[in-house]
Amino acid sequence: MTMLNDHQIAQNADIKPIDDIGNKIGLTAKHLIPYGKHKAKIDLTDMANLPNRHGKLILVTAINPTPAGEGKTTVTIGLADAINQLTPSTGKTAMVAMREPSLGPVFGMKGGAAGGGHAQVIPMEDINLHFTGDLHAIGAANNLLAALIDNHIYQGNALNIDPKRVLWRRAIDMNDRQLRNIISGCGDATDGMTREDGFDITVASEVMAVFCLANDLSDLKTRLGNMLVAYNRDKQPIYAKDLHAHGAMTALLKDAIKPNLVQTLEGTPAIVHGGPFANIAHGCNSVIASKTALHLSDYCITEAGFGADLGAEKFCDIKCRLSGLQPDMAVIVATIRALKYNGGAKKDELIQENLSALQQGLPNLLKHIDNMQGIFGLPVVVAINRFITDTQAEIDMITEACQSLGVSVALCDVWEKGGQGGIELAKKVLSLTDESKHNPSKTAPSSFGFAYDVNDSIKDKILAISQRVYGADDIKLSGHALNQIRRLEKLGLDKLPICMAKTQYSFSDNPKLLGRPKGFTIHVRDLTVATGAGFIIAICGSIMRMPGLPKQPAAQHIDVNDDGEIIGLF
Amino acid sequence: MTMLNDHQIAQNADIKPIDDIGNKIGLTAKHLIPYGKHKAKIDLTDMANLPNRHGKLILVTAINPTPAGEGKTTVTIGLADAINQLTPSTGKTAMVAMREPSLGPVFGMKGGAAGGGHAQVIPMEDINLHFTGDLHAIGAANNLLAALIDNHIYQGNALNIDPKRVLWRRAIDMNDRQLRNIISGCGDATDGMTREDGFDITVASEVMAVFCLANDLSDLKTRLGNMLVAYNRDKQPIYAKDLHAHGAMTALLKDAIKPNLVQTLEGTPAIVHGGPFANIAHGCNSVIASKTALHLSDYCITEAGFGADLGAEKFCDIKCRLSGLQPDMAVIVATIRALKYNGGAKKDELIQENLSALQQGLPNLLKHIDNMQGIFGLPVVVAINRFITDTQAEIDMITEACQSLGVSVALCDVWEKGGQGGIELAKKVLSLTDESKHNPSKTAPSSFGFAYDVNDSIKDKILAISQRVYGADDIKLSGHALNQIRRLEKLGLDKLPICMAKTQYSFSDNPKLLGRPKGFTIHVRDLTVATGAGFIIAICGSIMRMPGLPKQPAAQHIDVNDDGEIIGLF
Repeated sequence: MTMLNDHQIAQNADIKPIDDIGNKIGLTAKHLIPYGKHKAKIDLTDMANLPNRHGKLILVTAINPTPAGEGKTTVTIGLADAINQLTPSTGKTAMVAMREPSLGPVFGMKGGAAGGGHAQVIPMEDINLHFTGDLHAIGAANNLLAALIDNHIYQGNALNIDPKRVLWRRAIDMNDRQLRNIISGCGDATDGMTREDGFDITVASEVMAVFCLANDLSDLKTRLGNMLVAYNRDKQPIYAKDLHAHGAMTALLKDAIKPNLVQTLEGTPAIVHGGPFANIAHGCNSVIASKTALHLSDYCITEAGFGADLGAEKFCDIKCRLSGLQPDMAVIVATIRALKYNGGAKKDELIQENLSALQQGLPNLLKHIDNMQGIFGLPVVVAINRFITDTQAEIDMITEACQSLGVSVALCDVWEKGGQGGIELAKKVLSLTDESKHNPSKTAPSSFGFAYDVNDSIKDKILAISQRVYGADDIKLSGHALNQIRRLEKLGLDKLPICMAKTQYSFSDNPKLLGRPKGFTIHVRDLTVATGAGFIIAICGSIMRMPGLPKQPAAQHIDVNDDGEIIGLF
Repeated sequence: MTMLNDHQIAQNADIKPIDDIGNKIGLTAKHLIPYGKHKAKIDLTDMANLPNRHGKLILVTAINPTPAGEGKTTVTIGLADAINQLTPSTGKTAMVAMREPSLGPVFGMKGGAAGGGHAQVIPMEDINLHFTGDLHAIGAANNLLAALIDNHIYQGNALNIDPKRVLWRRAIDMNDRQLRNIISGCGDATDGMTREDGFDITVASEVMAVFCLANDLSDLKTRLGNMLVAYNRDKQPIYAKDLHAHGAMTALLKDAIKPNLVQTLEGTPAIVHGGPFANIAHGCNSVIASKTALHLSDYCITEAGFGADLGAEKFCDIKCRLSGLQPDMAVIVATIRALKYNGGAKKDELIQENLSALQQGLPNLLKHIDNMQGIFGLPVVVAINRFITDTQAEIDMITEACQSLGVSVALCDVWEKGGQGGIELAKKVLSLTDESKHNPSKTAPSSFGFAYDVNDSIKDKILAISQRVYGADDIKLSGHALNQIRRLEKLGLDKLPICMAKTQYSFSDNPKLLGRPKGFTIHVRDLTVATGAGFIIAICGSIMRMPGLPKQPAAQHIDVNDDGEIIGLF
């Protein structure tokens, strides 16, 4: 048997017209703005006239990521497909809501970010390349603001902006280390004002975070206007609205903000919309996408970036807090290989049974379970993405450990089998959400909670996340971070949720402390504020906002064949 | 009566579904890839099965541009509308083929670039903002190549690229003077190699020129691979293909290269596709757009950038020469105001009758007529865009002068009246092209000619354009330009057409020499080569590749109202 790669599976798919996919969730041609035959944006103007199905919100999260791979996105997609396979008996429909990929990384280490194997969203090339142009629109809005700031300084600087205190950076959707740090405005007197500057990858722009947290176009415009872009020479804040930039930025985003509808390989409707960084931003698809999916379907399966310490925490404490969304349960994805890696096994030994490494790594999973249940008040199912090398003894060990926390484990095989490989997981998910239906207290506001009170001090909020979610002993703030706290308090910008920017590989801020580390301190090096998105970013360690290309970039193997088909994208 | 502005006229238009527009030229749903309900890309795979109407190619060009405005684009659109108003009697259909606007300038001095008044292509906001994403795709392809070049240097530089001789610049679709000249690769050792660098506006990228000259996807890839991007330390050329960049760049452009179909206010099908700079590039819509329109309609009305000295010359000597296209006739657009300005009248005096200024300015028009007829062998009609202040004596003076060259004049009012205002012009155009039908010698290959033989030396080609087209006495090449000629000859890159980059305001290289200057010399400061596009750029004076924003950028007035409609874009 020849194994097909992800790209080949996607290209062989029996892709359906996007109108047919829309029809499954009650959308007719008038609600769909086509982008080609297999993508559409959803026109939300008529939404109020469509029945609101008040879907259950199911968050798919994971253990800390490892080089072994966990498969969170494939589980997200496969779970929705599996629920839809059960539709004849349940009468319920599921949708996917997930992030849209950034173009830059496609040309770097890997190809796409649209699932894998038989759990993918398609058309895979389109989604991974320009899709419906959202990322380009976000980059253009970011760079229009940058141009307006520098033009303001050049044209007389009526706002008295301090060129050394311009906070706003430029953006490009490309992995390009050469643009991380630049001196802009070189050349003649007519070529701007020479200053230090730089580019972030577009997904790291606050415009992306704003885009994903906005409730509608009007909220988007307000948030864009509220973005802090510089300080003036009196150290007073300058916002985007002071430059009258937010109207034109909103015009650039008017179409992009409409959620994108595509399909999974099995024809499950999927909204793929927005994709902020999961370290310096909150790492979740747009609020508009989630709300649309909850309106149109019975189950919205969504994911958050990285592991549950970063992704699920921000999903709850930032996205849900700011939007009023409430998750009904969490699925935590793990693989036996990744848990063994967390327990100290080497990457090339993961295919061998290793109960002792598994025993060492399991507490990583257990801590995430404990957080989801204990802190955020969510029912949990663990999804183990199966590999052929997993042994029964290893599976049993996980199952027993989870049972001790009252959590059930489902084995998954969605990469190989699509929805059929997620039936066990789907049944457990449905059973848990049905339970909460029969027992409303499980989803009552009192059961879903946050890790901290947003009105606490910045320091207390960081401490709460670090101790409760990460299991740290303490936090340590640099002098610079303390100065920033004082400045934010003075500006009245301290009563915002915290977006922790730390390594995704560990509960701690040290990527090498795998498993379930204890006795560590979280070091906060710097603080910045995203006043439009509405969160404070606490930076622990060095956080990359602009990746580079590797020695052998994927771009060198991506091509178009004589039939006009893209090859080498996987 | 309240006057509506362009944006309001466009918003009030009775816009038709794009399928209905496609149907007018034989395209069915299977040929159209929708982008929303009013834009589509044309899938060319099935083109051979559609009847080829072998349309007439009608080039709309103009006198040298002035601040008074000439209205070349409105005439292009209005002429096609007028021909289609005559369809009941002629049975013939006309299409527009024109350039797509750049996003950057929309936020600068002015709003859109999609015609004006009652001669516009719509949906106006979409066309002026992201449209179908072509500009973004071209920018991404440009910047992927830039990232691959710097990554190659960073990752060991196997090609021995000289960082001081990287020719390839980055691109952004924004008026941003701050990025004209930068130092990139600042920061740590892991942040690239520090070097001088800069951004051009996307339309100035060679990728745009290549995009517009490619015959198909395969030709596009070949041309992208052939782009000269740097020299190595042995001064040998490095091409994009040496970096294996052209396959991935083609993948990024796979959809963009398909021509965009929209409509005029009167429902005339319009292909709006590609838009290179008219100074450092050739300033014409894509070859694919022109060929598609000629296949699907009886008359393809197209325009070239700036005045006929730059735009029409390059249309003939570059675009037609490289693609095999042959224009059937030229329409030269002028206004009485602009001719008076060319004759020395001040901008605020143009509304007064001034026969002596008109007499002084007329030779500008006459020289363009002479060039079109004498050098390029094209029948000519002059279109005078009427203003209420034009007097009968002024009109008579132009008419008589043109008649002395055997050329007829049509008065136009398409801005105010749409196609109805272009009926006289349409009849004269049809009569001239019908003549050429009855008298095949008028369009025989022998009658259409070029300004120079491409196999002549670079210097002789520049001399031919300068003397024959501009009416210069001589040319003067800088030492640097002469060195470049020697280098290009050595590399075998000299047998290419010449793309003159000079001011658009004068036949000469001095923007202040209006009218029909004589006794001047053309100074060539520098030469560069666009080996993918396939032309040599001769730079006269300082040519801006990255505009800046004005003191009051249009962006500050562009907004989205409570109904989600864009306002302030005109």
